[in-house]
Amino acid sequence: MKFEGSHILSVSQLNRDAISRILEVSSLMAPYAMRKKRCHVLDGAILNNLFFEPSTRTRVSFGAAFNLLGGAVRETVGQENSSLSKGESLFDTARVISGYSDVIAMRHPAMYSVEEFSKGSSVPVINGGDGANEHPTQALLDLFTIQSEMAPHNKTLDGLNIVLMGDLKHGRTVHSLSKLLSLYKNMKVTMISPDALNMPDSIISSLTNAGHQVVVTDKIDHNLSCDIIYQTRIQQERFASKDEANLYRGHFSLNKEVYQQFCQQHTVIMHPLPRDSRPEANELDSDLNDLDNLAIFRQAQNGVLVRMALFALTLGVENKLSQFEKPVTWYTNK
Amino acid sequence: MKFEGSHILSVSQLNRDAISRILEVSSLMAPYAMRKKRCHVLDGAILNNLFFEPSTRTRVSFGAAFNLLGGAVRETVGQENSSLSKGESLFDTARVISGYSDVIAMRHPAMYSVEEFSKGSSVPVINGGDGANEHPTQALLDLFTIQSEMAPHNKTLDGLNIVLMGDLKHGRTVHSLSKLLSLYKNMKVTMISPDALNMPDSIISSLTNAGHQVVVTDKIDHNLSCDIIYQTRIQQERFASKDEANLYRGHFSLNKEVYQQFCQQHTVIMHPLPRDSRPEANELDSDLNDLDNLAIFRQAQNGVLVRMALFALTLGVENKLSQFEKPVTWYTNK
Amino acid sequence: MKFEGSHILSVSQLNRDAISRILEVSSLMAPYAMRKKRCHVLDGAILNNLFFEPSTRTRVSFGAAFNLLGGAVRETVGQENSSLSKGESLFDTARVISGYSDVIAMRHPAMYSVEEFSKGSSVPVINGGDGANEHPTQALLDLFTIQSEMAPHNKTLDGLNIVLMGDLKHGRTVHSLSKLLSLYKNMKVTMISPDALNMPDSIISSLTNAGHQVVVTDKIDHNLSCDIIYQTRIQQERFASKDEANLYRGHFSLNKEVYQQFCQQHTVIMHPLPRDSRPEANELDSDLNDLDNLAIFRQAQNGVLVRMALFALTLGVENKLSQFEKPVTWYTNK
Repeated sequence: MKFEGSHILSVSQLNRDAISRILEVSSLMAPYAMRKKRCHVLDGAILNNLFFEPSTRTRVSFGAAFNLLGGAVRETVGQENSSLSKGESLFDTARVISGYSDVIAMRHPAMYSVEEFSKGSSVPVINGGDGANEHPTQALLDLFTIQSEMAPHNKTLDGLNIVLMGDLKHGRTVHSLSKLLSLYKNMKVTMISPDALNMPDSIISSLTNAGHQVVVTDKIDHNLSCDIIYQTRIQQERFASKDEANLYRGHFSLNKEVYQQFCQQHTVIMHPLPRDSRPEANELDSDLNDLDNLAIFRQAQNGVLVRMALFALTLGVENKLSQFEKPVTWYTNK
Repeated sequence: MKFEGSHILSVSQLNRDAISRILEVSSLMAPYAMRKKRCHVLDGAILNNLFFEPSTRTRVSFGAAFNLLGGAVRETVGQENSSLSKGESLFDTARVISGYSDVIAMRHPAMYSVEEFSKGSSVPVINGGDGANEHPTQALLDLFTIQSEMAPHNKTLDGLNIVLMGDLKHGRTVHSLSKLLSLYKNMKVTMISPDALNMPDSIISSLTNAGHQVVVTDKIDHNLSCDIIYQTRIQQERFASKDEANLYRGHFSLNKEVYQQFCQQHTVIMHPLPRDSRPEANELDSDLNDLDNLAIFRQAQNGVLVRMALFALTLGVENKLSQFEKPVTWYTNK
Repeated sequence: MKFEGSHILSVSQLNRDAISRILEVSSLMAPYAMRKKRCHVLDGAILNNLFFEPSTRTRVSFGAAFNLLGGAVRETVGQENSSLSKGESLFDTARVISGYSDVIAMRHPAMYSVEEFSKGSSVPVINGGDGANEHPTQALLDLFTIQSEMAPHNKTLDGLNIVLMGDLKHGRTVHSLSKLLSLYKNMKVTMISPDALNMPDSIISSLTNAGHQVVVTDKIDHNLSCDIIYQTRIQQERFASKDEANLYRGHFSLNKEVYQQFCQQHTVIMHPLPRDSRPEANELDSDLNDLDNLAIFRQAQNGVLVRMALFALTLGVENKLSQFEKPVTWYTNK
């Protein structure tokens, strides 16, 4: 795949080589994200960060990623009073805004809206989430995290034993991640969820077609003896009553006791965040916070690396980084 | 006119020489806006982009223009929770915010508010729209677009044949543009609108006093045989009923068929944008999108050039651009 | 106190030496804030400006301060749709956002929220106001203003004659400022307020314990013969009726006539701003605007110096400023 000048709209457009390249360039970004050096290869370039649906984490992560490459960021949050609300087409908005930009990151509540927008854009567009459809940078940062967490154990993506747990029916992140896993080999993928929230059959098929072993269950216990647990939230509103939800929630949440009883010593815990820390949520207990294998915050930080990589690739500077390095001049403990 | 340190509040403050200078400097900005080179003459300067009335297009355009000259942008959107809502005067707000700024761009819903604000400001203030009163940068970018679109045909502003069409009564942009046209010579200006939405007499007088030929009509047809058509929206809410509005709208909208029947080969179509793309709006048909003479997106992009020019002129750097040039390091197809 | 890597959460964490150092470094910032030179020591660093409670003045001041040191700013305004509203803990938000940042400035409506947040942050956090609790940068800029306004009169903080006037019961700024004054010697502090809005006893005790002379009164008149008058708003909503409020307000407001009758020739007027300029507010008359001793706008501008100093100190670059200087290239009359 030629990245330079391309839009990044969906994980489906990426084959295994393209993904390898993204993960490889993401690794190159670590010294800059960790403030070992700074990079100004995109000094003078402008990102338009269009979040027609508000978001703090993803929006700030895209913006920080662009700043870390030296670029400037213009930002739009929310849809009120925008030209879109006056009947402007996404095509027109894209023609105009892309005229002010070198690259665009966009989130929008409507499915396929980012793809429609990209047709009018004269610069690369990166999908930051289009409703229930896609959030490809999340799936890529998840995959990058799995790869980098397993590297110290001499494990690669092929052959891993992965647990996906929680609401597998509605979770956009586990769907996109599963599509990416279908590009790898010989995995065991265990789907743990209440019956009512099972992974859609189409996703399961794509994994079995890829030759992976898929186990569907509503029990945690020994199923947690794996390389990676990827947990998502059980949402109360998906059930008939709060009582029914509570019945389930107790059985799909992780805490230190469960971890020590059932997990392996190297089992890594992931979560797309935010995790609901209210006691009634019973999601991912904070008593795990001091566990080194709790990768949830490293995972969030990997989002910066992956987004830096996508900016560098679509703007064709991934081989020029070292020419535009400077030392960091300020205190940092990263 | 001395631009350095001056406010840009109204087209009325600009004579023909001043406008020539603005358009000339706008042209100098093209290589930077088109990413042929980048410019960092304002590296270290701060624009405060105060949009007390939200706007995506104009706000982002001001911000991108400042970034393209190397400056940093601080931004405020909306009026809620601002000091203004706690009873602070525009004078006080200006005294404080200008202390944090090198230049200010401001939009505010109240007429003359930007002028009032400018009295307290210690740095140049550029009016980004003050309600029904003025939006001078729009008028300047419109004039710049007319000039640059006519240049390949060896036509200058003097002597042009221009059509203004749509709601000429309420359209702030056609009023300000007409004021600027009054500074030029020997034009034919045709005003096409429903009777109820005619151009105000004062504007027509200023054009006839300037020696221009003015035609007022409610027919399109052969009147469209001209150099420039500047279209604005016919707004349904201006009429007694939707049915009455629909009667009118059909007669003041452009599509490919109308264009081919009545326009000249070089006739250029302009529109201040956003255009309403909902079918019921019947405004400027998307079947014109592949027409090279549809200048509406170039027009929007010219907003960046004109705003760069105003920043450069008010901050006195218009003659230093080439000293602060660098090559562009990333992929661009602009 | 070691500033590098530290959070700045409360005035209570600062002793007299620490404050001296902050005020000293603030003075070093003047040439950059006044555009005599520019400084890019933090080029490549990222401030996350988190204003979960909106604010124009303080937010823009933090952002501009960081830009003036060469850094980039990512910004979040308001709490809607943020991860916090989905049940994310402040600890988790801090872990994630600090991963994208070199330093964080944060305002939040809940008391002690910024401190709680700081526990999860891997980078320095500066409190920009946590509800009724603290707003330490305001207290520091107030102290800096008193010191710099008195310097031409060869007066230092020790021994000053200061009037605090208005709503002393609810005013967060006068409470924090009083805590700082307790670190100095031999002051006379006159508290002028309606009985119902007297300064809390605990604050008065801390001043008397420090050896200061404290006078509590509800009369202005000859009490205004002092070095500094620090005025705050009398808020109508604190009284049983508007009529009762109006009774009071007339007696605690300054105008030119009162100033000329009772103040000394060098008496400096301060106010945390915004001042309510609506006639019914009767707060600080605009007929004082041309009085050179009205320091309220210099005070607001000093906020930039103090915030620059705190960024420089917490990021450990306060001794490197001159290595990263460049001349200013644009027009400025600061």
